[in-house]
Amino acid sequence: MQLKIKEIFNQDYVKLEGQKIQIKAWVRSNRDSKKIGFLVLNDGSSLTNLQAVYRVDKIDNYEEIAAARMWAAVVIEGVIKLTPTAKQPLELEVLNAQILKQSDEDFLLSNNDLNLETLRLNAHLRPRTNLFHAIMKVRATLAFAVHEFMNQNEYSWLAAPLFTGNDAEGAGETFSIQKFDNEEFFGKQTHLSVTGQLQAEAYAQAFGNVYTFGPTFRAEKSHTNRHLAEFWMIEPEMAFVDLKGMQDIVEDLVKHVIKAVLEKNQQELEFLAQRNDENLIKKLQKVVESKFERIEYKDAVKILADAVKNGHQFENNEIFFGMDLGSEHERYMCETYHQGPVFLQNYPKDIKAFYMKLNDDQQTVASTDLLIPGVGELVGGSQREDSYEKLLKRCQELKMPIESLQWYLDLRRFGYYMSSGFGIGFERLVMYVTGVNNIKDTIPFPRSHGQIEF
Amino acid sequence: MQLKIKEIFNQDYVKLEGQKIQIKAWVRSNRDSKKIGFLVLNDGSSLTNLQAVYRVDKIDNYEEIAAARMWAAVVIEGVIKLTPTAKQPLELEVLNAQILKQSDEDFLLSNNDLNLETLRLNAHLRPRTNLFHAIMKVRATLAFAVHEFMNQNEYSWLAAPLFTGNDAEGAGETFSIQKFDNEEFFGKQTHLSVTGQLQAEAYAQAFGNVYTFGPTFRAEKSHTNRHLAEFWMIEPEMAFVDLKGMQDIVEDLVKHVIKAVLEKNQQELEFLAQRNDENLIKKLQKVVESKFERIEYKDAVKILADAVKNGHQFENNEIFFGMDLGSEHERYMCETYHQGPVFLQNYPKDIKAFYMKLNDDQQTVASTDLLIPGVGELVGGSQREDSYEKLLKRCQELKMPIESLQWYLDLRRFGYYMSSGFGIGFERLVMYVTGVNNIKDTIPFPRSHGQIEF
Repeated sequence: MQLKIKEIFNQDYVKLEGQKIQIKAWVRSNRDSKKIGFLVLNDGSSLTNLQAVYRVDKIDNYEEIAAARMWAAVVIEGVIKLTPTAKQPLELEVLNAQILKQSDEDFLLSNNDLNLETLRLNAHLRPRTNLFHAIMKVRATLAFAVHEFMNQNEYSWLAAPLFTGNDAEGAGETFSIQKFDNEEFFGKQTHLSVTGQLQAEAYAQAFGNVYTFGPTFRAEKSHTNRHLAEFWMIEPEMAFVDLKGMQDIVEDLVKHVIKAVLEKNQQELEFLAQRNDENLIKKLQKVVESKFERIEYKDAVKILADAVKNGHQFENNEIFFGMDLGSEHERYMCETYHQGPVFLQNYPKDIKAFYMKLNDDQQTVASTDLLIPGVGELVGGSQREDSYEKLLKRCQELKMPIESLQWYLDLRRFGYYMSSGFGIGFERLVMYVTGVNNIKDTIPFPRSHGQIEF
Repeated sequence: MQLKIKEIFNQDYVKLEGQKIQIKAWVRSNRDSKKIGFLVLNDGSSLTNLQAVYRVDKIDNYEEIAAARMWAAVVIEGVIKLTPTAKQPLELEVLNAQILKQSDEDFLLSNNDLNLETLRLNAHLRPRTNLFHAIMKVRATLAFAVHEFMNQNEYSWLAAPLFTGNDAEGAGETFSIQKFDNEEFFGKQTHLSVTGQLQAEAYAQAFGNVYTFGPTFRAEKSHTNRHLAEFWMIEPEMAFVDLKGMQDIVEDLVKHVIKAVLEKNQQELEFLAQRNDENLIKKLQKVVESKFERIEYKDAVKILADAVKNGHQFENNEIFFGMDLGSEHERYMCETYHQGPVFLQNYPKDIKAFYMKLNDDQQTVASTDLLIPGVGELVGGSQREDSYEKLLKRCQELKMPIESLQWYLDLRRFGYYMSSGFGIGFERLVMYVTGVNNIKDTIPFPRSHGQIEF
């Protein structure tokens, strides 16, 4: 019976006592005296290792197995033996062992205390460390949980285009495509998309509920621990849903994906808690159980001004209606004022994107950011401007190229009653759920200014 | 009770008789005499429309509702009435109706007989047609079914990087990124990736089973109905799996996703069968039930040569060992010789990529293509070269830049016993399952040479 390590530990393993099994795995460590040796094995299915005990009087090739180095690939046949008094509840008594492929002696990451920067420089090998095993397994759980939530709620996944001829999507610097054979491949200057929202709106007006889950690109030169040039976004868009209804969906989605990790990745979370943040699991459980607070932007400004009055020091203490809140202000709102997730809502129009619905006060737009302790902004969303005339006016005010947005404006001419949507930076979500501090450690092969290895 | 149309028809709707419900939807058509009118409504949840009957003696705003144009957004309250003798099993007797947003008169796609080219020029509106509703819903089912299969089988989803400094991934022309502020943003010339396979191998050596599902880019100027500049690929990679084991996984995956569509999208398939290919459903059922054939490349060459000898005319009748099979030859193999999916395997090394495992005959590599009736190649895969020396030699023979591939070569130094993987062009899969002839009609906003609208 060939088993994966996860299959062994995920069942009532008492029943496995005395069973003969086969396992293919990599050696994590190997120590031997002259008569008995211990292989610690991992096959990638689990953070848990399986210990295999080999004895000189049981196998013919004791010397060969004793020479298996870290990350050698091996195939082991053995009998499961319960070890109730040991740290591990069971081990494998080796009957037969073969080295499938020896490993070179200079494996770079054999030292467990390597710093994150060194691991980043070895992004092809870092998934073999416990830390990156844990992070990337949680990441995979989050990704599937997003698709699962969307599928359960009848959202169709949408592939938004990545090449765009439109430089006016309203979010930062874009990458451009070089000419090909001395001509523009697409017939005009082409950028890499920074959002799939505009196209998602077109599909929401036909399907009701859609979502994108794909890469986006931003040519930001910042070298902070919160920016990547290439990252993944989830952008749901719902027709017939207003700002408040959209916030409910954000809350349900965030809770669903965190619950999935709490259920599936207990072991990884325990490891990450130990390594990154001892309160990690409690923090996640609290999010799942809490009701997300909703606070008007204008009230947040008062709260922050009061905090300054009462002696709280921000780096930027100049608080006024119309300001773009800094990360420090956002974190104050969700970490100090309210200790948990907070939606701020109805921001001044001048600090938000052109497509957001103008409120009756003519000053603010129907927008919301979800602020999360330790991260700040995790989700940004809005109800979209549904009036052709108002949207056109706003585009003109901002001197945007109307022609390339005409199709987007035209959506408003054909029954565009209401649409709301939001964007989640997927790597921000991974940061939050894993407690990792640097966004470059949340994606397998990070791309940022000056960094393109692998 | 607010319901979606899909919820109405997906339940035992006899129970709904006499129930009062509310629905928000768009008008697909509206006709009235002076006393009675009929709204055909769709809310995007289903291909099925709901007919709502409004009467001048039941509602105050009969004239207003009678003026609702195609794609006007409306909210209707009414009572479900079963209509066993009509084509539709039920209708809505309107108690209250409001136009939420009128639609302009010049809706472009009001004619049902528009050709596909016109629809492509209106890619923002085409999801409102029955045809694109059906195609894109099937597409969404396929995408989720891929994630579902992978999750059930313990594969971790991997975000392969899209920016690459490596121009040697072995597949066609690439797009390059323009300099930014007069310098290379990433410090060296940067391309858009054509595959995530190399990075997937790194993760397979840590996790066992991984898969990518993301966009890839190819600067192909061809204007055929089978090429896009931007398309989506699924690339699973499995450690400890050989060519034959990999073919089993391909077969299971293809059957799983087709089964999902047969179960979830019966209505869409019936529509597509009527429109595209009357044998569509039978064809899909046959794939699910059949055992995929496996034929050696060298035997295929003999079969094709025999066909020519027996009078079959290919455009290219020159059949020899070492040739790259054309689409016509591939289709002969899966449509005429064997009427169903066929794996060809063990191709000559010179027509395949550098990373494929050299077979003992020194002539062929452990590669396979899955050929599907009506499409040709749907899947390409291989067992990877696991020997550092052989892989290095092959890179040198092909004059590839070793330096930027050193990390990939190095994987072989640390327990790289075995790895196999494959790639599925997602849009090819959608073509096959929907019976659509042009790949531009399988993706919401197609990008190809000269085409970048929306």
